[in-house]
Amino acid sequence: MSDFQDALARSNFLVQHEMETLLYSPLSEQLTAAMRYSVAGGKGLRGFLVMESSRLHGVSEGRSLRAALGVECLHAYSLVHDDLPCMDDDDLRRGQPTVHVKWDQATAVLAGDALQADAFKFVSETGGSVQVLRRLIATFSFAAGARGMVGGQAADIAAEMSGGRLTLDEITSLQNAKTGALLTWSCIAGPILAEADEKSMKTYGDALGLAFQIADDILDVEGDAAEVGKATQKDEAAGKATFVSLLGLDEAKRRAQALVDEACEALSPYGNDAQTLREAAQFVVSRSK
Amino acid sequence: MSDFQDALARSNFLVQHEMETLLYSPLSEQLTAAMRYSVAGGKGLRGFLVMESSRLHGVSEGRSLRAALGVECLHAYSLVHDDLPCMDDDDLRRGQPTVHVKWDQATAVLAGDALQADAFKFVSETGGSVQVLRRLIATFSFAAGARGMVGGQAADIAAEMSGGRLTLDEITSLQNAKTGALLTWSCIAGPILAEADEKSMKTYGDALGLAFQIADDILDVEGDAAEVGKATQKDEAAGKATFVSLLGLDEAKRRAQALVDEACEALSPYGNDAQTLREAAQFVVSRSK
Repeated sequence: MSDFQDALARSNFLVQHEMETLLYSPLSEQLTAAMRYSVAGGKGLRGFLVMESSRLHGVSEGRSLRAALGVECLHAYSLVHDDLPCMDDDDLRRGQPTVHVKWDQATAVLAGDALQADAFKFVSETGGSVQVLRRLIATFSFAAGARGMVGGQAADIAAEMSGGRLTLDEITSLQNAKTGALLTWSCIAGPILAEADEKSMKTYGDALGLAFQIADDILDVEGDAAEVGKATQKDEAAGKATFVSLLGLDEAKRRAQALVDEACEALSPYGNDAQTLREAAQFVVSRSK
Repeated sequence: MSDFQDALARSNFLVQHEMETLLYSPLSEQLTAAMRYSVAGGKGLRGFLVMESSRLHGVSEGRSLRAALGVECLHAYSLVHDDLPCMDDDDLRRGQPTVHVKWDQATAVLAGDALQADAFKFVSETGGSVQVLRRLIATFSFAAGARGMVGGQAADIAAEMSGGRLTLDEITSLQNAKTGALLTWSCIAGPILAEADEKSMKTYGDALGLAFQIADDILDVEGDAAEVGKATQKDEAAGKATFVSLLGLDEAKRRAQALVDEACEALSPYGNDAQTLREAAQFVVSRSK
């Protein structure tokens, strides 16, 4: 295994291990089960980025693990809600039935809602000064809400319903909000916790986030549903404008690689210590699921 | 107008006024509209309790208003999600079409999700020490999530689906979580912000919360749908166990009044300064909507 795969497996193990006891409802066993099911089986890329950007800035694992739990809860809730019949209507996620298929829609809505409340709790348990805590929560809320992930999802659904084809600029801004904002937050969590300059990690995170989304569009065209763990070729069937439909497959791949190079370049101030994050950027565009 | 009605109108005006500019999504006009619609037209009882419990402890209005915004956003999101077809399936709220009726279910899910993210942001902007901020967010998340409001709603739906009739103890614990936790949080927000003892306000809030729910069950039986602003007589039609079905109408009213007395008694350390909160407790059981 590469250093990156090793570190990803390790951070994901730590996150998943904590989740098993920290996520619970004394009021409903089904809610507890649905919350734990929602966070299980993912790669844990966002939690890894939090822990790795923290390690790079000398932040202890005890602190960064709480932020990692927070971002993974938030990401998990967003997938559960996005999969609902009134949204993307997906039956399969990470190779398993989605929450509303396994239980019902009410449970999916409530499990997502409860995970978001826990996400903010975990992020608030990272220690440090009041300035750090305020900035961490302000940036987390921005990335999660109407100016970030939720706003991007609303714009994505609106574009699909209007049937109008988006331009490249429009898709870029939509995807930056929908997917990029939370990935970037994961990368700046380290410098925020360390009260260090956020600029390099923000450049890295922005480039990584966009490369991630282009790679997602490529996977939708080239990927095998069984391996990807969710339905593929949905975009073309829906007549949806994507990076691939606008740029063509070759140019989309070229741009994704250029973004990976840009992300790695932003890490130069950290020298060899950032090698794992360089591998992470490369992984994002070469993954098969 | 009584002092209470005056203070309630004033705090609700301040909260609503701020919401008009603070709630927005640059990515979706519809999301912005749905978020603002969701918070409009309520009484603002939770925001009032935050501001009044803060005033009683010498906390500035600049600080308490942010916590009031937070709790009103969170309450609004919970109503939007509870009204969804997969949950309580209500078409009418505060005398207006519910969000999924006015727009669609996806917009209702997303507006609720975005309001929860903003709720935590507002609560984090209340100033004070890091200890205060951590406790404020920990208690807010507890009241909002799987151990509070969301857990109570999950248990409520499960009870309805199983068709089994709950006991009085079970209903009390369910309603304490579903409705009581956020009302209690609103009452302890003041002492938390002031780093003062929370005990008296917690006793007041717990009694107020339970009185509120008993009054809600009474309103469902006695209230007029047009005045209440939502469908009534739903509980009996659903064969649902309520405080009224278990205790009878007279005993339910007697218990609600006893809880009001208990709430007022808890305010004795504050003397005349707490008169508005005493009126608030009486209002909760005598309201007609």
